[in-house]
Amino acid sequence: MRPMPVHIALLRQHHLFKEFSEQDFSRLLDKSEIISIEKGETLFSQSQPADKFFFLIDGAIKLFRLTPDGSEKVLELVRSGQSFAEAVMFLKQPNFPVTAQAIEPAQLFVFDSQRYIELIEENSRLSLALLGQISIRLRKRIQEIETLSLNNATHRVVRFLIGQMEELDSMRVDLGMPKKMVASRLSIQPETFSRVIRKMEQAGIMEVNGRELNILDRTALLNFD
Amino acid sequence: MRPMPVHIALLRQHHLFKEFSEQDFSRLLDKSEIISIEKGETLFSQSQPADKFFFLIDGAIKLFRLTPDGSEKVLELVRSGQSFAEAVMFLKQPNFPVTAQAIEPAQLFVFDSQRYIELIEENSRLSLALLGQISIRLRKRIQEIETLSLNNATHRVVRFLIGQMEELDSMRVDLGMPKKMVASRLSIQPETFSRVIRKMEQAGIMEVNGRELNILDRTALLNFD
Repeated sequence: MRPMPVHIALLRQHHLFKEFSEQDFSRLLDKSEIISIEKGETLFSQSQPADKFFFLIDGAIKLFRLTPDGSEKVLELVRSGQSFAEAVMFLKQPNFPVTAQAIEPAQLFVFDSQRYIELIEENSRLSLALLGQISIRLRKRIQEIETLSLNNATHRVVRFLIGQMEELDSMRVDLGMPKKMVASRLSIQPETFSRVIRKMEQAGIMEVNGRELNILDRTALLNFD
Repeated sequence: MRPMPVHIALLRQHHLFKEFSEQDFSRLLDKSEIISIEKGETLFSQSQPADKFFFLIDGAIKLFRLTPDGSEKVLELVRSGQSFAEAVMFLKQPNFPVTAQAIEPAQLFVFDSQRYIELIEENSRLSLALLGQISIRLRKRIQEIETLSLNNATHRVVRFLIGQMEELDSMRVDLGMPKKMVASRLSIQPETFSRVIRKMEQAGIMEVNGRELNILDRTALLNFD
């Protein structure tokens, strides 16, 4: 199948291809193809030499490993617009570390890893641009993780406090142990626990006296974000 | 200040330096220095040419931008063992996009971006290895985000259900609207909402009849993860 303009446009936005010149991009496309696979079909298997990488146009692919007891450990669900198996091509002995199987009918671009590497090796500007793209993405993801972690910590604290209030049937919650130990029980950092409690205090949801928390507004606590 | 073996060992573990040969690493170190800055001191300012990048040995650095109204927007807190400002060196016109200021006394490695780029340009194996390292890290972070997002969704659903139970003063919660709308109100994907509800049903926490949820175990719901 030949790529259509809409496919090309989709690819061009992806960080792996964004920095290519028209000419380099054509050379890459010359060695690529579009394939369709059925639901349940295996695209590649764990330990097989990794000479290709992929861009999922449509459908869904699961990447999994077989554990020693023979069960599947799903590591990733790939969705439309995502690339996969590209990290492995930069390594010295590329073998697929996972098996890829379609969980919905899928349409994919298949790229030749060797050709991609050649283009990058020939053109150090391209390789630097790609490093820049990936570095920025990595940095954004790390920030996203920090935000999500703080949200998660907030949720945990709210649920813990609601649970304590129900157990004690009171608006006064005595932590009964150092904040550090409560934090550890909730699997969050002590500083994060203190930060969340401080935010709640500032929002007028509770008063804090040492280990005793006086909840002022139960509904606001439940809706606190 | 000259780097001590303990500093070198720390650096060598970092993905930016892991793949360097001894010789290349020495050439990089020749152009680097260790500096100390005081709490409150500015390391570099937004829009200044970015000819250096950094590795924080000890202390804490905040990276921020000034908003049009003159207030600070903190984008990142850098902690010991982290590099920063390295993504920008791969871009065409490198200017620092942020200001970096110490929020604790800090000790840092300062690297010459030009030298780093030269080493990578001379040695395509190095640049590919670095691309591999960063790609793998990016992939891991994306997986981490997925896990955190699912946890977050679970927390949101629990808090929503507890809130509904309190409001209705009942163990029966009628969603009163399509699941898709509830999901949207909780800022999660409809499939994720259904997945969380299904997990709760399987754990014996509730029975589901269309839009009506019959909560069987309030405590288990509060402790559900």
